[in-house]
Amino acid sequence: MKILSVNAGSSSLKFQMYEMPYEKVLISGVFERIGLKDSFYTLKIDGNKVKKQVNLEDHEKAVEMLSDELINNNIVSSLDEIKAIGHRVVHGGDKYSDSVIIDDDVLKTVEDLSKLAPLHNPANLIGIKAFMKKISKAVSVAIFDTAFHQTIEKEEFLYSTPYEWYEKHQVRKYGFHGTSHKYITSRMKDVLNKEDVNLITCHLGNGASLCAVKNGESKDTTMGFTPNAGLIMGTRSGDIDFTLILHVMDEEEKDLNEVLNDLNKKSGFLGISKISSDSREIEEAYLNNDEKAVLTQKMYVKRIVSYIAKYFVFLKEVDAITFSGGIGENSSLTRKMIIEELQPLGIYLDETLNDKREDEFLISNDSSKVKCYVIKTDEEVMIAKETYRLAK
Amino acid sequence: MKILSVNAGSSSLKFQMYEMPYEKVLISGVFERIGLKDSFYTLKIDGNKVKKQVNLEDHEKAVEMLSDELINNNIVSSLDEIKAIGHRVVHGGDKYSDSVIIDDDVLKTVEDLSKLAPLHNPANLIGIKAFMKKISKAVSVAIFDTAFHQTIEKEEFLYSTPYEWYEKHQVRKYGFHGTSHKYITSRMKDVLNKEDVNLITCHLGNGASLCAVKNGESKDTTMGFTPNAGLIMGTRSGDIDFTLILHVMDEEEKDLNEVLNDLNKKSGFLGISKISSDSREIEEAYLNNDEKAVLTQKMYVKRIVSYIAKYFVFLKEVDAITFSGGIGENSSLTRKMIIEELQPLGIYLDETLNDKREDEFLISNDSSKVKCYVIKTDEEVMIAKETYRLAK
Repeated sequence: MKILSVNAGSSSLKFQMYEMPYEKVLISGVFERIGLKDSFYTLKIDGNKVKKQVNLEDHEKAVEMLSDELINNNIVSSLDEIKAIGHRVVHGGDKYSDSVIIDDDVLKTVEDLSKLAPLHNPANLIGIKAFMKKISKAVSVAIFDTAFHQTIEKEEFLYSTPYEWYEKHQVRKYGFHGTSHKYITSRMKDVLNKEDVNLITCHLGNGASLCAVKNGESKDTTMGFTPNAGLIMGTRSGDIDFTLILHVMDEEEKDLNEVLNDLNKKSGFLGISKISSDSREIEEAYLNNDEKAVLTQKMYVKRIVSYIAKYFVFLKEVDAITFSGGIGENSSLTRKMIIEELQPLGIYLDETLNDKREDEFLISNDSSKVKCYVIKTDEEVMIAKETYRLAK
Repeated sequence: MKILSVNAGSSSLKFQMYEMPYEKVLISGVFERIGLKDSFYTLKIDGNKVKKQVNLEDHEKAVEMLSDELINNNIVSSLDEIKAIGHRVVHGGDKYSDSVIIDDDVLKTVEDLSKLAPLHNPANLIGIKAFMKKISKAVSVAIFDTAFHQTIEKEEFLYSTPYEWYEKHQVRKYGFHGTSHKYITSRMKDVLNKEDVNLITCHLGNGASLCAVKNGESKDTTMGFTPNAGLIMGTRSGDIDFTLILHVMDEEEKDLNEVLNDLNKKSGFLGISKISSDSREIEEAYLNNDEKAVLTQKMYVKRIVSYIAKYFVFLKEVDAITFSGGIGENSSLTRKMIIEELQPLGIYLDETLNDKREDEFLISNDSSKVKCYVIKTDEEVMIAKETYRLAK
């Protein structure tokens, strides 16, 4: 069954077409700068990359061009062969604890939830609607970033704020990156040959979150009401003492939105280091003993370690700690620094294993009380799998 | 040597007079509603309490009445016998890592630091100046809530925000309750018969903070730029996801100051439970299975446990965990709930010991990898000791 996996942003549209259930990628690509000057798209087929400058006035135009490419490249002979399209949707609120086939009610609910994700849900909806119009026979499925975390209990998801903020205004921890944490959890069931896995999954990319998985279900995560909570990220602060906001507004003569923007776009790696939001540049400067890069890297590692400690105690039993995402998969230095701090918990690194470069590998040594793994994440295939499950 | 220990608020003045170095309390009391209607003071001498309705137009008047009481009760025959006065000062910024004898420079610096503690430092200064005027021969000493935490390293005290906020606007973790954490640390040196103690000190009162003590020095603490960070408190939220603030402002149609006030005065125990800010009432309702009280108590315990887990890993070696403050000293239930969650760290309670009621006692069992103690805190005597050390 041919299935499209789609991730639509306000001016972009990423896709992969899979032959399911074989998880074989037939074609992938991204349309960029939709509705802007100098728009273009790139495709990847059989390892070959193509880039085309085109006029993309809106997402519908992008879907049209995508359709033409599918036919011209003999991926499908007719659009009717595309049986289902899975759409990444950022916010499912507390309405969706699973992926769902999209109908009018779902469209309405995702739109209502835009209040909680004003930057993301409207863009996701534009993508969904463009595909529903242009490839109308395919089943559309919504896969929510928040859904996997709906098993988190109230005592973990509630904030220590007036209770009516939760009741009236939906103020609670939602968590994000659910598709990645769910994918890693499903991989670890195979790796550990165990259904009821207890994991601490570390998704460390430009955005980053940890998830505490108990018996295969998310029971806590570091992101919160929005994705700017928890870990230190590329440009996001993650956790801070909120009381500094008013002081900074006074001192910098900025309004609240400007300071919140600074906390989202000018903090994290970039804010501390003054070098870059890119962890690879921080790591290079760290190795050259740049003072601020050393500080940034240490603070980054410490924040992760503190959450691993929290989840270690919270979960009571942990089968494995996993590292995924751009940093988690590629930075052996970061993994080493994290695991070395976990010695008080009886968790130990194997430095030789840690330097391997594969999609899935063990990095802890035989004495370690908890196994540690690198597991390459794949949110796109998870979207395709979810879509196949609901559409087949 | 007769020493006064003073804690001045904007409309109150608490004092204890000690005979040092014997730490003997000669008289104590509090002046309340200074500058307001229905002002009064209470005194305690030899276990007897007296309350007097008087007109207290300002702090100077309170100091005058205090002076009269000292003489009338034969505590001193002349004010010249008061050799030193120790004043609690909330914020010493990064200027003071120790208590200091107050001169004009110190007065100026404490005033400058009012920007960081606008509610507290000005009130502390009013108290200091009133005593300097009325009991002018005594040496005045400032004891800062922040001083003990000045040994925290940059990688712990810095926030993941733009670096210039630290450089230009003094945005960093300061920590508070330092006098209590320092007192507990000094007691634990005696209890453990060891100078370089490694501790997790839990000060659990209406305000609450944890401190990670390494080799007798504070190396991390849960309060931050202001005291509304870290643990869940009576009416303070402690840690939250700051991104909820903007959403709540929109939904509640409140301005930033109103929402910050809600986070300071209407959150924590009171906000979650809708019952009370008083932990004793939460505990009573918890025992009656009130749903929100159960939630509040569990969230309260979980937050503490997560910080203990963080500090356990951070410190690498921990000699003892201590419980102090109104809740820490009196709630065996809260201590039991906390320590039971620490089993993954090999920390175990002795339930019989935990039910004792003394000033200092062990509550962990023989198998526990870390000893746990209840230690009654005494910030007033710590102020007197600091004052004696500098003034003798």
